[in-house]
Amino acid sequence: MNLNELNHLSAAEFTEALAGIYEHSPWIAAAAHVRAPFADVDALIAALREAVAQAARERQLALLRAHPELAGKEAASGTLTAHSSEEQKGAGLVNLSEAEKVELAELNRRYREKFGFPFIIAVRHHTKSGILAELRGRAAGDDAAREFATCLDQVHEIARLRLASLLAA
Amino acid sequence: MNLNELNHLSAAEFTEALAGIYEHSPWIAAAAHVRAPFADVDALIAALREAVAQAARERQLALLRAHPELAGKEAASGTLTAHSSEEQKGAGLVNLSEAEKVELAELNRRYREKFGFPFIIAVRHHTKSGILAELRGRAAGDDAAREFATCLDQVHEIARLRLASLLAA
Repeated sequence: MNLNELNHLSAAEFTEALAGIYEHSPWIAAAAHVRAPFADVDALIAALREAVAQAARERQLALLRAHPELAGKEAASGTLTAHSSEEQKGAGLVNLSEAEKVELAELNRRYREKFGFPFIIAVRHHTKSGILAELRGRAAGDDAAREFATCLDQVHEIARLRLASLLAA
Repeated sequence: MNLNELNHLSAAEFTEALAGIYEHSPWIAAAAHVRAPFADVDALIAALREAVAQAARERQLALLRAHPELAGKEAASGTLTAHSSEEQKGAGLVNLSEAEKVELAELNRRYREKFGFPFIIAVRHHTKSGILAELRGRAAGDDAAREFATCLDQVHEIARLRLASLLAA
């Protein structure tokens, strides 16, 4: 798939092609398509970001909540999306020791209870130790607005990486 | 080396044993030693952080400036400290493509010119893509005070990881 091919898709096909870029949230690709065709990948990325930025806060919150916990119940039950499964595997989150599993579950629980959405991080950018260190630090914080913004940033970074893989394939 | 052994060292021996924890900055271990013996590793880490926190800003700046650039001239000429060499190698920073080398050098230059100290990141926590993404984002910013604080945080995280390796050996 390349940008030229994407530019020639119908709105429905375009939405389908980019459905996995934002976790369980095809409305973002659908909204971005109104700006097609895109001069370059950066223009496409900007349109996707803009679609999220213009959405109501509740929809942004739903986007965050559509993300699985790292090494959480979706991973255990095999119900992760293909993208998430590959990313979590790549970061070594499927080969955790019992102690790491317990700590991760506890930190995930604390984070979600405190902020109302799951801890989100672009795992492809981090090592396992980095993910744990980041989660420890962010779960200990108490600035919900900042976490909301950080998670949205991470969601966009995850989307950018997934889009790059899609266009490289 | 374990904590009990560290606790029984003289000030000079202690400073020597921890000399590599903070890059080219043995004064930090020397200052922390006044609080020995340490009840646990967290107490030792707290003493090291406190030594930096109580230092004058110029000394903190010198600490930041004691760090090598990532994939910079020290790496090219083989004059990195053993710790830095191992960390940069682990993050894939010794196997860069020509395009990555050029981008990294340009971003490092821009960052240092803008802020007056090198870009510092705990590379053991990040993948190569993550380091580049972080550097791009931070080199594009313009909040020098925030970068100063972020770099000091990263320096402490690097020190914590080096200390953990030392105590595990």
